[in-house]
Amino acid sequence: MSCPFHTPASRRGFLLGAGGVAGLAAAGGAAEAKPHLPPLKQTAALQDERRLPFYGAHQNGILTPIQAHTYFAAFDVASDRRSDLIALMKSWTEAAAKLTQGVDLGPPDGDPSKTPSDSGEVLGLPPSRLTLTFGLGPSLFAKEGVDRFGLASRRPAALVDLPRFVGDQLIPARTGGDLSVQACSDDPQVNLHAVRQLMRLADGVAKVRWVQNGFVPGYDPKVTPRNLMGFKDGTMNPSPTEPSVMQACVWSGDEGGAWMKGGTYAVVRPIRIALEHWDRMHLGFQEQTVGRRKVSGAPLSAADDGVAAEFTPLDLEATDKNGDPIIPENAHVRLAAPQSNDGAQILRRGYAYDNGVSFVAERWPPWRQGMELDAGLLFVCYQRDPRTGFIKIFDKMSKFDMMNQFVTHIGGGLFACPAGVREGGYLAEGLLEA
Amino acid sequence: MSCPFHTPASRRGFLLGAGGVAGLAAAGGAAEAKPHLPPLKQTAALQDERRLPFYGAHQNGILTPIQAHTYFAAFDVASDRRSDLIALMKSWTEAAAKLTQGVDLGPPDGDPSKTPSDSGEVLGLPPSRLTLTFGLGPSLFAKEGVDRFGLASRRPAALVDLPRFVGDQLIPARTGGDLSVQACSDDPQVNLHAVRQLMRLADGVAKVRWVQNGFVPGYDPKVTPRNLMGFKDGTMNPSPTEPSVMQACVWSGDEGGAWMKGGTYAVVRPIRIALEHWDRMHLGFQEQTVGRRKVSGAPLSAADDGVAAEFTPLDLEATDKNGDPIIPENAHVRLAAPQSNDGAQILRRGYAYDNGVSFVAERWPPWRQGMELDAGLLFVCYQRDPRTGFIKIFDKMSKFDMMNQFVTHIGGGLFACPAGVREGGYLAEGLLEA
Repeated sequence: MSCPFHTPASRRGFLLGAGGVAGLAAAGGAAEAKPHLPPLKQTAALQDERRLPFYGAHQNGILTPIQAHTYFAAFDVASDRRSDLIALMKSWTEAAAKLTQGVDLGPPDGDPSKTPSDSGEVLGLPPSRLTLTFGLGPSLFAKEGVDRFGLASRRPAALVDLPRFVGDQLIPARTGGDLSVQACSDDPQVNLHAVRQLMRLADGVAKVRWVQNGFVPGYDPKVTPRNLMGFKDGTMNPSPTEPSVMQACVWSGDEGGAWMKGGTYAVVRPIRIALEHWDRMHLGFQEQTVGRRKVSGAPLSAADDGVAAEFTPLDLEATDKNGDPIIPENAHVRLAAPQSNDGAQILRRGYAYDNGVSFVAERWPPWRQGMELDAGLLFVCYQRDPRTGFIKIFDKMSKFDMMNQFVTHIGGGLFACPAGVREGGYLAEGLLEA
Repeated sequence: MSCPFHTPASRRGFLLGAGGVAGLAAAGGAAEAKPHLPPLKQTAALQDERRLPFYGAHQNGILTPIQAHTYFAAFDVASDRRSDLIALMKSWTEAAAKLTQGVDLGPPDGDPSKTPSDSGEVLGLPPSRLTLTFGLGPSLFAKEGVDRFGLASRRPAALVDLPRFVGDQLIPARTGGDLSVQACSDDPQVNLHAVRQLMRLADGVAKVRWVQNGFVPGYDPKVTPRNLMGFKDGTMNPSPTEPSVMQACVWSGDEGGAWMKGGTYAVVRPIRIALEHWDRMHLGFQEQTVGRRKVSGAPLSAADDGVAAEFTPLDLEATDKNGDPIIPENAHVRLAAPQSNDGAQILRRGYAYDNGVSFVAERWPPWRQGMELDAGLLFVCYQRDPRTGFIKIFDKMSKFDMMNQFVTHIGGGLFACPAGVREGGYLAEGLLEA
């Protein structure tokens, strides 16, 4: 285990206290909380498979096996009263506990002279493993020097302002945010529906700032998916099923305050890839850039002898007959490897994104201009401390990674994801009530 | 059968001459055409289920049971030589025949000093029922009065310039195009990959003009999906499994030239929905606007007695005790119904789209401004003649439909989709070789 933090491994109950649909319906009143699954599909197996708990020691959607689709949204709080923020967190907590269980926010029928509490487009759909993961941005604690909610003194040291990295082309309208929520499920309609209801509940208190949806290519939990560059992506990711590694690398301890104990920090960066440019490169150059073989995913330092070669450890010392490193000094995998970063590891949970096409004036010969694919990676990673996680790793990558010829960070932010919610509590309660 | 064209019904072999993977691999050379399915998954059942034929009397992707995801792309031809256009159509035909069968356009490995012919991001993925449906825009036949390819005399009468409709807010950069292709499959990565390869093959001859991706909510072939307004959408669609209806309403006969016999005309319109505005409406007003109940989908004129009520025929004559029509005069379903349009019917095959959020200044009290959901419907419909199909129906709807308070057509186009390709031929061959 090579992580910046070494704490005693503790086997903990993963996602305790799942609230069942029956409990929710009883608590919310039958008319207010009706499962939208059609009766015929309400088998126990389907419930287990497609309905993930909301309540627990940690927020869900972090260690959860990745779902096929995502919808990330960042919000700005328009009010400066803490009571409004508390009311919003209570309302979002209650909604998230229902939505993740496939329960609508209100009856889809009923009084025709009233506005439905739920927009209704998931009627009949299963929850599709929906998770909703919430975060708090640095600007919630202080914005332009103003401590709007009296929270500045409770800002965790790890919730820094992200530095400006070499090559950053951050679009203000796609960067930052006081609050964040990431919906993940196997159905894009389920994600959009969930975030839409949260937007409605925020009306007058918080306004959506930016969003990005995404997908996992050819979802199959047994294999490493390929990114839009055609390479397997995630081979070296630490395993969410190793609690000691997760405790060391992902979950916050006491250092951020009690409300962050069992929480984590999310770095979210939409990264546009110049796919047309990449597609014009020779196979050898692509592989040198990544540091791995395209088909097998094997590191360049390993024999390319089949699928298993993907998991052969990197040999960063390996040299060719001239004494030059086989994995180039500026290859992506070398710069990202824990060995190159004092053991630093982050838990990546990224998605491909596809925003269609937009106009690009290329910065390389022959300086083409025109519509190009606006697609790439919605990079999402979790870590116990971004200063020794993403920031440490990416500072060097932003300067030296050969892949920077093809990728541009166009927005994003850092968000503190509080500990999970226990039934009866609400998101970030320990922060807001203290 | 109530359609503007009545021709003798002929039972025809649907999608003849499917080229198998083995045939393709043999034709293209083993090194050039390698199935990207991993060997373990190559069962016959999987082949049947996920691999749809490309060759046939009609193009596929029109009557095909709808796939979960789509990627539509429109291109402008940059060359004015017909030989370039022919070369592109041959190249696209060959590529489409491979891609739909899960065959890569070239080896993903091989000579490291060469650019791979295929970008490789679907290695290991099944074809996921991929279909590729091609179309020709009016501007291919004459652009700003110039007959670039000597095709003006062969332009079918039905391939009109779409009129300007009341309320149109068409963005030029999302409107028109000389050529179109719509990829549909159950995996967004498979769609993007297919269109990306077609873009690469078009390099120097045609440039992408606009694209739009989309999805079917909670894909389930047994139920009518709900659109983003929360209503079932597609209840009255004619059935693709009735050949006589399809022949009358969808497939072109002799009237457009031999190359269009068995072809059809696609109207594609991205329609943005003011979802925040819609969500503030009372349930009764939503139902009056649509003309149906939200939960069951039953017409307002029918007893709302369960799921089967969805398919109760509209009773447009039904009145309440005051003599007023139960389905309002300007309800969406009334204006769209064949009974209101001299029997006109179109085959809709639309998708939801989700482009995130963008800035909106609302045109209604209290004139809110801010980021709003940029989502709605990628409307796609097929018909034998748009003059008696979409144009006839939508002319009235654009003026009177109550739903126009919430929906805005922001782009799109009309495309002639030629007949299907026989093995050894290429797309639109009959037009271009004549």
